[in-house]
Amino acid sequence: MARIAGSSGPRTEEAIRRAGLQLLYTHGYAAMSLRQLAAEVGIQQGSLYNYFRNKQEFLFDLIRTHMQDLHAALDAALLREGSAAERLQRFVEFHVAYHIERPQQVFICYSELRSLEPDNLEVIVAMRRDYERKLGAILDLGRETGEFQLADTRMGTLAILAMLSGICNWYRPDGRLSTDAVQAIFTGMVLALARGEGEAAVQAPPAPLTRLAARLR
Amino acid sequence: MARIAGSSGPRTEEAIRRAGLQLLYTHGYAAMSLRQLAAEVGIQQGSLYNYFRNKQEFLFDLIRTHMQDLHAALDAALLREGSAAERLQRFVEFHVAYHIERPQQVFICYSELRSLEPDNLEVIVAMRRDYERKLGAILDLGRETGEFQLADTRMGTLAILAMLSGICNWYRPDGRLSTDAVQAIFTGMVLALARGEGEAAVQAPPAPLTRLAARLR
Repeated sequence: MARIAGSSGPRTEEAIRRAGLQLLYTHGYAAMSLRQLAAEVGIQQGSLYNYFRNKQEFLFDLIRTHMQDLHAALDAALLREGSAAERLQRFVEFHVAYHIERPQQVFICYSELRSLEPDNLEVIVAMRRDYERKLGAILDLGRETGEFQLADTRMGTLAILAMLSGICNWYRPDGRLSTDAVQAIFTGMVLALARGEGEAAVQAPPAPLTRLAARLR
Repeated sequence: MARIAGSSGPRTEEAIRRAGLQLLYTHGYAAMSLRQLAAEVGIQQGSLYNYFRNKQEFLFDLIRTHMQDLHAALDAALLREGSAAERLQRFVEFHVAYHIERPQQVFICYSELRSLEPDNLEVIVAMRRDYERKLGAILDLGRETGEFQLADTRMGTLAILAMLSGICNWYRPDGRLSTDAVQAIFTGMVLALARGEGEAAVQAPPAPLTRLAARLR
């Protein structure tokens, strides 16, 4: 959002962002109204237009800012040297710590992709691809050094990101496990996934399951 | 939904379900109107009440039916004997094949949990827990037989389900990989994750990343 002059501008902008995030999380983009948003912040609806032109721009800005911050934080955290396993461990610890504190943003960045207009969607998809590429580069390095045995690093990238981001769906700060414990357990699982050869238990499965599932549909 | 007598009942019910799924996927629960739904199906809005009492009941029924069908299909597919690795392989193949064909249902069952009223949410959460338990039992078996070395089978269950269900977000039937290829690659990764000891590359990470991420926030 464009910052405006004056002392209350940045504070109001932050209040709009926080209230908007909560409304998007509770009701979804299509059902959220700018009237509601203004009321939550305690300003006139017309004042919102000092910060963004319309609801689409608000959503786009929220998601883009999240992705920009995520990239900046990752770039600061990534190891520039060391083994692929060390770099992967660092990536996992970073991704878990960063996302576990932002479950609402993670939810919206996923569930409201459908609400972005095509040009905006293209920008966000490119930023996500770029994030995926940074993990993919670590997996490729591990294949080159022989540390990792992944059959397909692209699938490996998507699998690892899904399992790590999924933590946001169930993690509770007051639950059984601390963030550190979750980081350690997921680091172990991701390293095992990347290192293991993962030969199938049965080469030819007893039943063609794609067809089986279709029949049971 | 309650089936009504007459030849067109089941066909209309199916049409309502299909149109409702599409509307929920496109606009979300809060923004979807029953007027829209009736128009899509080509019936009067009042006729919808032959099938459900209100929008909440429609959403609940849609998600519950999905979970019931999923459980029935899983129970038919699961191996009752064999090694834990064989059973896990069968689980993965089933879960991938079943979900890859229903990306809209998977999206809604996740993104619209927030829209379920408390009593309804409780029913769905119990059904999900039950599904998780079926995978958890395979992982526990593997720990008993020594096939698997997972540090925490509950975390393992959640990690595996997240990585498998995540396939729905990117899989395209006309893409680079067939369903069979995706099943094989993910089976390999899940078995590696379950079998591997996944020792951390570095026992004490160089920087406390939770605090690092918080600082960069």
